Amino acid sequence: MEVEDGERMKSYRELSRDELLELQGALNKEYADAKAKGMSLNMARGKPGFSQLDLAMPMLDVVNSTSDMRTVLGNDTRNYGDLDGIGECRRLMADMMGVKKDNVVVCGNSSLNIMYDTVSRSMTKGVNGSTPWCKLDKVKFLCPVPGYDRHFAITEFFGIEMINIPLLADGPDMDLVEKYVNEDASVKGIWCVPKYSNPTGISYSDEVVKRFANLRPAAEDFRIYWDNAYCIHHLYDDEQDEILNILEECEKAGNPDMVYIFASTSKISFPGSGVSAVASSQANVDFIEAQMTIQTIGHDKINQLRHSRFFKNIDGLKEHMKLHADLLRPKFEAVLDTLEAELGGLGIGEWTKPKGGYFVSFDAMEGCAKAIVARCKEAGVVLTGAGATFPYKKDPKDSNIRIAPSFPTPEEMKEATNLFVLCVKLVSVEKLLEEM
Amino acid sequence: MEVEDGERMKSYRELSRDELLELQGALNKEYADAKAKGMSLNMARGKPGFSQLDLAMPMLDVVNSTSDMRTVLGNDTRNYGDLDGIGECRRLMADMMGVKKDNVVVCGNSSLNIMYDTVSRSMTKGVNGSTPWCKLDKVKFLCPVPGYDRHFAITEFFGIEMINIPLLADGPDMDLVEKYVNEDASVKGIWCVPKYSNPTGISYSDEVVKRFANLRPAAEDFRIYWDNAYCIHHLYDDEQDEILNILEECEKAGNPDMVYIFASTSKISFPGSGVSAVASSQANVDFIEAQMTIQTIGHDKINQLRHSRFFKNIDGLKEHMKLHADLLRPKFEAVLDTLEAELGGLGIGEWTKPKGGYFVSFDAMEGCAKAIVARCKEAGVVLTGAGATFPYKKDPKDSNIRIAPSFPTPEEMKEATNLFVLCVKLVSVEKLLEEM
Repeated sequence: MEVEDGERMKSYRELSRDELLELQGALNKEYADAKAKGMSLNMARGKPGFSQLDLAMPMLDVVNSTSDMRTVLGNDTRNYGDLDGIGECRRLMADMMGVKKDNVVVCGNSSLNIMYDTVSRSMTKGVNGSTPWCKLDKVKFLCPVPGYDRHFAITEFFGIEMINIPLLADGPDMDLVEKYVNEDASVKGIWCVPKYSNPTGISYSDEVVKRFANLRPAAEDFRIYWDNAYCIHHLYDDEQDEILNILEECEKAGNPDMVYIFASTSKISFPGSGVSAVASSQANVDFIEAQMTIQTIGHDKINQLRHSRFFKNIDGLKEHMKLHADLLRPKFEAVLDTLEAELGGLGIGEWTKPKGGYFVSFDAMEGCAKAIVARCKEAGVVLTGAGATFPYKKDPKDSNIRIAPSFPTPEEMKEATNLFVLCVKLVSVEKLLEEM
Repeated sequence: MEVEDGERMKSYRELSRDELLELQGALNKEYADAKAKGMSLNMARGKPGFSQLDLAMPMLDVVNSTSDMRTVLGNDTRNYGDLDGIGECRRLMADMMGVKKDNVVVCGNSSLNIMYDTVSRSMTKGVNGSTPWCKLDKVKFLCPVPGYDRHFAITEFFGIEMINIPLLADGPDMDLVEKYVNEDASVKGIWCVPKYSNPTGISYSDEVVKRFANLRPAAEDFRIYWDNAYCIHHLYDDEQDEILNILEECEKAGNPDMVYIFASTSKISFPGSGVSAVASSQANVDFIEAQMTIQTIGHDKINQLRHSRFFKNIDGLKEHMKLHADLLRPKFEAVLDTLEAELGGLGIGEWTKPKGGYFVSFDAMEGCAKAIVARCKEAGVVLTGAGATFPYKKDPKDSNIRIAPSFPTPEEMKEATNLFVLCVKLVSVEKLLEEM
């Protein structure tokens, strides 16, 4: 059957019942053929691909048995000490995060772990002297949606009530954020991925960042959890998002302690063997370190030395990320081109075209996401579970699907996306027939 | 003045006031001379010495840019995955800890951090489903004393009441432990360093371990926090302490879930860049992993690979520790020989002669420890703060001093101990004069 109408694709919504039935027959046949191929592809998680990891292999040579293991200041990285990280690595992470070195604490291998510890500490010890959250009847977090499942998992784990906030093209719906934060003292935090957001890839506008900095929280222990996971993770040289410096904006607005910034090199060097850091005001850093000194004698300073010597400085980091971009761009383009070619104008899905980060976010017709993911899985392509991008894994519209193009090759990504668009069409047709 | 009496040193307590005054004069002179030397030595912390760290340097070469980065099972250590540690590293740590591989979770760079997380999790989530401790009016821990300051710091941080339990020559006073644990439901844990205890160096007898395993706790969420930090840290080839396997003993006694065992390679490879692990029953491991999967995507698996390939197996670990012993023995002997030669028979101090671990524990006359540490510091030798080996840093007798011989060279250790014995003599004479 031909669904083109002159130059324009005909929207599925314009099709008659008979046309839909005919289309369904053709799609079912195509799906059966696809299934018979026995594909096995995974685009569920934001895992770097092999070729990206290969780029960091020389890092494993820069610190070896003949190396001087001392920091610039002469401290032996092999022994205890330097709780807040070695100086050169604090400098590197500070430059990456766009903050002053004194505001940075370099931690272990995972920024997620710092976020977990930050929430956990707030539960047992409060925030810079406030009542521990475990002593309160109700603690709430705002969750821009769609968002990062592992953020939501932390707040769910600690029994914190999560409130959905729509994530718009320029950031969270700030009218709603202001209303909740400024009026409800049980709202203690908001999860943010301000740049190349997970999963939609949007970046917060200057106005949104300024409105964040100018919040007047009802709760003294309200904090913005600013997970700048993709701060230098651009896909293009010429078109890059930049966001305002939230720490500076908070200072200007008289809210110096209102934000924690998190980042890591997990998607720069090696996931699991990178270096993470938190940046915040001096008062917050002091409070964090008072806990850290109880929790550990220090993080892995040899790995910090390895990172500092390999990347040298922020320019080295940026050069390295250009090589990543060269590898990731074809994968993103394989997805985006296929989506456009196959679904453009059909009226059965919308998607984002990010300029960085790790994801493409796809919104199917309401009530279709779970079925699409299930169909893909049945034919050998694993996607992030539908609903995962929402608190409690509940997407109220059953619409959002996160696509992670980084791990497969561009060819595999093309193949996987072909199956994906087929499943979108198939499930959409079923849905439309159902509704007739 | 001559304080020898024939063959035997004359105890200070047998000296007359005049004899003490004369002695004090001589010691003051000696102390003034020592101070004039301008020493600067630190025997405060259990830090490995440079030569020990050098032994592990070749480890930095075994994983390099040309290495196959896959585990035995074929998993890429450079990417996300293997939350509970790579198989070969779990095997290595299991053999070191004397437990089955399935009972081990390999974590980050610090066993202290696992202990902190274990207590923190109990505060917010309870123990395998029990009431979170933060919801209880009173939570208590038993603390064998003298003990490890960083254990006590964790429980103090979380507002847990600490109860001193005397540490005897064969382990904690088990009559007291049984009384507290079996009768008081607010007692939720006990800190133990069962082998080459920090600081006394004693190891728990088989009877003590069995009595531990056969506790009948009033609290279902009571756990033994078994920090086997020095499990293969022997000083001698021919004389080694061995302790019973607490996990097996607990199983036999029908208390399979009652113990968490902690260990790390911090004092085997590199402090801060080692690998840590926790071992426990399957039920406990499941509960720990349910939290860990929220806290992190995984620990540093490249470092786990580095350790597995360098040490190969438990025999490799043991051979490596013999090289450590060769370096540590002269330092311990420098301390012990000097203590014996200078203080033997004087009745002003007692000390332990450990066969492993990192410390010598010295008990001065009551009320003298702080003054001795202060005198040493004044003359350039930094010791662990007096009181540090007790909860709340309060040694009720002001008597215990922890000596850490590992970091200085044997020559420095001899020099530092010479100053130490001088200060012990000086402060003891002052004390005896005061009491006259």
